[in-house]
Amino acid sequence: MTSYSSTDHHLVSPDRLVTFIDGVFAVALTLLVLDLRLPSGTSDLPRALREMLPAFLVYLIVFASVAGYWIIHHLSFRHIAYCDGRLVVLSLVNLLFVTLFPLTASIVGAHPLEPLATACLSANSLLYCLSAWAVWSYAAGHRRLLAEGAELRYLQREARIMALVGTCLVLAIPLAYLNVYLAYVDWVVCVPLVSWIGGRLYEKKDDRK
Amino acid sequence: MTSYSSTDHHLVSPDRLVTFIDGVFAVALTLLVLDLRLPSGTSDLPRALREMLPAFLVYLIVFASVAGYWIIHHLSFRHIAYCDGRLVVLSLVNLLFVTLFPLTASIVGAHPLEPLATACLSANSLLYCLSAWAVWSYAAGHRRLLAEGAELRYLQREARIMALVGTCLVLAIPLAYLNVYLAYVDWVVCVPLVSWIGGRLYEKKDDRK
Amino acid sequence: MTSYSSTDHHLVSPDRLVTFIDGVFAVALTLLVLDLRLPSGTSDLPRALREMLPAFLVYLIVFASVAGYWIIHHLSFRHIAYCDGRLVVLSLVNLLFVTLFPLTASIVGAHPLEPLATACLSANSLLYCLSAWAVWSYAAGHRRLLAEGAELRYLQREARIMALVGTCLVLAIPLAYLNVYLAYVDWVVCVPLVSWIGGRLYEKKDDRK
Amino acid sequence: MTSYSSTDHHLVSPDRLVTFIDGVFAVALTLLVLDLRLPSGTSDLPRALREMLPAFLVYLIVFASVAGYWIIHHLSFRHIAYCDGRLVVLSLVNLLFVTLFPLTASIVGAHPLEPLATACLSANSLLYCLSAWAVWSYAAGHRRLLAEGAELRYLQREARIMALVGTCLVLAIPLAYLNVYLAYVDWVVCVPLVSWIGGRLYEKKDDRK
Repeated sequence: MTSYSSTDHHLVSPDRLVTFIDGVFAVALTLLVLDLRLPSGTSDLPRALREMLPAFLVYLIVFASVAGYWIIHHLSFRHIAYCDGRLVVLSLVNLLFVTLFPLTASIVGAHPLEPLATACLSANSLLYCLSAWAVWSYAAGHRRLLAEGAELRYLQREARIMALVGTCLVLAIPLAYLNVYLAYVDWVVCVPLVSWIGGRLYEKKDDRK
Repeated sequence: MTSYSSTDHHLVSPDRLVTFIDGVFAVALTLLVLDLRLPSGTSDLPRALREMLPAFLVYLIVFASVAGYWIIHHLSFRHIAYCDGRLVVLSLVNLLFVTLFPLTASIVGAHPLEPLATACLSANSLLYCLSAWAVWSYAAGHRRLLAEGAELRYLQREARIMALVGTCLVLAIPLAYLNVYLAYVDWVVCVPLVSWIGGRLYEKKDDRK
Repeated sequence: MTSYSSTDHHLVSPDRLVTFIDGVFAVALTLLVLDLRLPSGTSDLPRALREMLPAFLVYLIVFASVAGYWIIHHLSFRHIAYCDGRLVVLSLVNLLFVTLFPLTASIVGAHPLEPLATACLSANSLLYCLSAWAVWSYAAGHRRLLAEGAELRYLQREARIMALVGTCLVLAIPLAYLNVYLAYVDWVVCVPLVSWIGGRLYEKKDDRK
Repeated sequence: MTSYSSTDHHLVSPDRLVTFIDGVFAVALTLLVLDLRLPSGTSDLPRALREMLPAFLVYLIVFASVAGYWIIHHLSFRHIAYCDGRLVVLSLVNLLFVTLFPLTASIVGAHPLEPLATACLSANSLLYCLSAWAVWSYAAGHRRLLAEGAELRYLQREARIMALVGTCLVLAIPLAYLNVYLAYVDWVVCVPLVSWIGGRLYEKKDDRK
């Protein structure tokens, strides 16, 4: 995993980077649930559960988004066989926005009808998409980082997808100030879109045969 | 780990998916304990420990269930050598129900004698089993995802086991409304059943020799 | 990692089990720090830090213990090349006691001078040691699980070490009821012992050459 | 991963150690965000967000530091092909200071203008750097632990960098007592320095060609 070969020691295998990224995604995805707590000392459980409902729906939306981002990351990183310093730094900036999801999800969970709260989550998603776009664009521009046989157009397409998803998500910010429910509609549309695109990306490779 | 081979680039190795799933299982299993907190500011430790006892028993039951699910996941996934988009999406839906266990366990820990609380945990287990059944059934129906030499009947059997365990667990919901202790009895019977089945699955492979 | 070979499909590689165990150890080790929180709303920082000191010392002791257990686990598991159902179940029971350390450490951190609190942590350590002893003993008794060239006496020695450490730690329970500080002395002696033994186990292998 | 070869069984592959270290880094990095919580029961969201701002800036600084340390760890560990008992113990001492970052970051987040709080974080960083320096120095002094073709001067340089960064960070302690903002300036200068050095270390290897 961390093996060192004298012939290509100027390039680093991304294996440890990928393991690290997966670890942060896995922890962030699991920490999301920590915001869903029953109020302590309540005895009226049905009401407590009803009150938890908005936060639970936010949880489902954020879980689906982060899971969708992980799928696209998983798909794109297969094309990358080496990493250099800049790719590692860009990837860690990308991870910063993964670790912020438990915070922004908790802000929306606590204030589900405040446009400002939904803007925090939209901004987080947008910054994630932009930094992911930077990672894939950088890799696509540096041939020596790519796996043999990797087709540039895949990475470029995945960079474009992140830019597209980011654009859709940023729309949720002005929409929330018109009517906060429109932000939820925007997310609920974007999230399956991300998953569906992820699924299609796999299928596409099948079609080529 | 993320290597990319031009000959089979239409199919993705499940290695990163498996690492990710293991990460989520490991974090969820460890977060369970965060619900077991002494009430702050108490000076009567023996009483505080006694009051923690029901939540501790719930912890043991949920730990054993999630550990049992991990064993069956571990066993089944060995047969899968490739993954496509739908398998990844199904696996992430499956993970959603893993990340919910710390929440549903905390609900039962706080309200151990409320049928509604036990119904939340039973429903979580049921949804985990159903989504796991969907993963194995999907894989069993797509030969090209399976490892060479994998015998279909193993995966089918493991899908059936998840369906069976799910059926046993859903019984806990009506039982809880008759008498809440019956739900605990149902869980305490189901959990070793899962572990025992897991153990048997390994042994079965020995017997064939 | 999860590859499936038709020739030895009756035995399972322990790679996923080891990754899972490492994940649980890593999360448990990092969650320990969550108990060290400043009381919210305090303005007298020096006093708040002084009040945190006993919990901080408990943190150091528990961190060193769990790290020591991980070292011995790391050393012992190298000899195991395959796992069967019982080894997996025993390993997950072993993990149960890893996940309990954040709880028992928090009990001692909140009540550092109560013999009952120190007994909880001692009991947790004891149960960890006993379950680790069960894992190594089981493996040592089943030749087909061991790596080629593994020498049985190493595993047997490591099983004996866990039994020895467990015996030393259980002494802390009666000692605490004589004088609670004796329990700390016992831990502070046992913990470097575990680390020192871990170190010696590596060295021993050097000496044999 | 945990394979055991009879020819070099006196030396242990560092793969499991590296996975474990990455796990702890990933969890610690993600737990940092748990300190950023909205005060419960507040209805004035804009004010709550403004009040969270200092803690958020501390979060960014600590995230960037820990990410920078991980990059340097990643780079240095590539040269290490085997580990012995002392290297494992030194690495776990190093990890102790990783797990403390969520605590010291929360102390500074709660008391951003107290010199004593900033001294806690500076001391944590210093101890991390010193223990990392000890790891790299130890490895550089034991040829048999290094990968074939590893050049000693790289590890020595990385050990020197950790010593240098540690020296810069310890300056923040007296500076904070002059004026607490100087500690922030010191951190904000050191953190990109760490990242920049990390980046350069990769590039250097490119230049040699």
